[in-house]
Amino acid sequence: MGSPSLKIVVDAMGGDFAPVNEVAGSLDALRGGKAIEVILVGREEQIRPELAKHDTRGLSVSVVHAPEVITMDDSPTAALKQKKNSSLGIGMNLHKDGKAHAFVSAGNTGAVLSASTLILGRIKGVSRPTIGAFFPSEEGVCLLVDAGTNVDCRPQHLYEFAVMGSIYANRIFKYENPPVGLLNIGEEESKGNEVVREAYQLLKNGPLNFVGNVEGRDILRGKVRVVVCDGFVGNAILKFGESVPSFLKAKLFAYAGKSAVRKAMLGLVRGALRSVFKEMDYEEYGGVPVLGVNGVSIIGHGKSTPKAIKNMILKAVEVAEANVNQYIQEMLAGSVVRPADAVIPAHQ
Amino acid sequence: MGSPSLKIVVDAMGGDFAPVNEVAGSLDALRGGKAIEVILVGREEQIRPELAKHDTRGLSVSVVHAPEVITMDDSPTAALKQKKNSSLGIGMNLHKDGKAHAFVSAGNTGAVLSASTLILGRIKGVSRPTIGAFFPSEEGVCLLVDAGTNVDCRPQHLYEFAVMGSIYANRIFKYENPPVGLLNIGEEESKGNEVVREAYQLLKNGPLNFVGNVEGRDILRGKVRVVVCDGFVGNAILKFGESVPSFLKAKLFAYAGKSAVRKAMLGLVRGALRSVFKEMDYEEYGGVPVLGVNGVSIIGHGKSTPKAIKNMILKAVEVAEANVNQYIQEMLAGSVVRPADAVIPAHQ
Repeated sequence: MGSPSLKIVVDAMGGDFAPVNEVAGSLDALRGGKAIEVILVGREEQIRPELAKHDTRGLSVSVVHAPEVITMDDSPTAALKQKKNSSLGIGMNLHKDGKAHAFVSAGNTGAVLSASTLILGRIKGVSRPTIGAFFPSEEGVCLLVDAGTNVDCRPQHLYEFAVMGSIYANRIFKYENPPVGLLNIGEEESKGNEVVREAYQLLKNGPLNFVGNVEGRDILRGKVRVVVCDGFVGNAILKFGESVPSFLKAKLFAYAGKSAVRKAMLGLVRGALRSVFKEMDYEEYGGVPVLGVNGVSIIGHGKSTPKAIKNMILKAVEVAEANVNQYIQEMLAGSVVRPADAVIPAHQ
Repeated sequence: MGSPSLKIVVDAMGGDFAPVNEVAGSLDALRGGKAIEVILVGREEQIRPELAKHDTRGLSVSVVHAPEVITMDDSPTAALKQKKNSSLGIGMNLHKDGKAHAFVSAGNTGAVLSASTLILGRIKGVSRPTIGAFFPSEEGVCLLVDAGTNVDCRPQHLYEFAVMGSIYANRIFKYENPPVGLLNIGEEESKGNEVVREAYQLLKNGPLNFVGNVEGRDILRGKVRVVVCDGFVGNAILKFGESVPSFLKAKLFAYAGKSAVRKAMLGLVRGALRSVFKEMDYEEYGGVPVLGVNGVSIIGHGKSTPKAIKNMILKAVEVAEANVNQYIQEMLAGSVVRPADAVIPAHQ
């Protein structure tokens, strides 16, 4: 017998194309050869016929019925109470009760975040769970945290985001002692508003590899692996960044006009752009984790394709195996606060 | 006799390459055939020899001596007091005293902003002068305001930025009734923090063509012509945006690798990228105006080339001729507050 397999709950009713893409993506993940099981949670009468379209022989997939569906239009905070038998609620509780190692959903982001926090609870020492975003850079992936979850932040929140982001960058992206920057309007310690100035002091005196203030330009430059900011700023930058590829395509298309040479160039550059922005491609990166909750909860894009669902499941496996939460709790508890101990080893 | 010429003060000691580029750019502007005069303010012993290198026959250029220079390292707030005879102080006072119609500098941005506010004073109704930034978009130029001047803002400040930005977009970019958006983390009226929610109400009840909340992605999409935000967010987005072209170049270069076809593509795409991002190219757009002060003050990039200086001067002429300040004052005074009156005519 091999090592015990990891069980992943998939919210089969989450995305815009549920349960079609959820079922197809789950089966693709199972076919990858990893020792995993998938529990599809949702309307059995919709999931079973979808499963029947595929060859599932030898794949560890099961179905748990949940009659209600939380839609993109539901209020994130009210949805859980109003729909007690939703796939989100029942699925998250399976994870909470230890019947699965992780939860994955391409559904209503706010509702998944809310359910993660309320059902799984916060890691000891975490004031506010957070969701980050991945950016490509000239030097590697850059994790921007918070990317829209917490609009108003106190300095302590920013400090905790830095800890969570740093551990994620280390455990998942395998960066040794990842450099962390505080987003500000200039590099000097005195820059910015009161919140970032206080956060600067907390970070300066903390255990992370804090390099000081960074500016918007430093994200793509790859100056640091983790950039910390409040969710208002983070969301604005994330959405601006996400719009760059389609903006470029539109402008280059207009630039090409009727020129045959320029049109040929356009064909070539499309592949290049896709490669350049692959870190921002939700199909590739496979969802973002809710950091700071007692469990593994991965949120995907509403438009998730089967490929995106598959990568979300694989990401969930990776996060569960990497013990991210335990590292977060230990660092926030101060067991690694001495600067001499602060070098985080590269993940084996 | 033609129409009386506009006199523009150029801070000859402002930029990183002063006074060389300031002198060359000023003469280029004068050669353009517009009825303008340039007053170069700075160290006469440096400016005169520089002028002597050029053929200045028939050009209306004069020199006003200022022995002191405010550098990029000077504190923006202390510089004016410590260096009373700086080119910035003396030049700005020439404008204030009516001896010139506009002031232009490629020097210390904070110091120019501070001098503009302190020496020229604020337009009646303006709480805080502001500096915007220009973005390219799929539909035209987008003016983001504030781009880093005011880190903490109250709702009224955001409202005033919207008024100033809207009038600038109309008078200078010739957009009729320019659509204005409030940067937020979602489109719903209830989104964001308290400041933006209150600003939303002010804008909704104001005279502008307010389309509601917009997100980071809407800047490049060109959904609106003016995007309003506080200077912390604006600065982060501006600097992120400014870093996109060089990031793309670096990534595309790496992507091309040793492939001859891809290298050929790279050569073609460079020109295309330059065209796509020309609205963000400081050489082209010719500096940003300090909005909300009693005068015309244009701030340029420290690395301004002669071409950039020339375009700053031409921008100053344009702003002075367009009566931007009078429109701002009238709108803030409420003389155009009724929605029915709110359609701003296209500039003739």
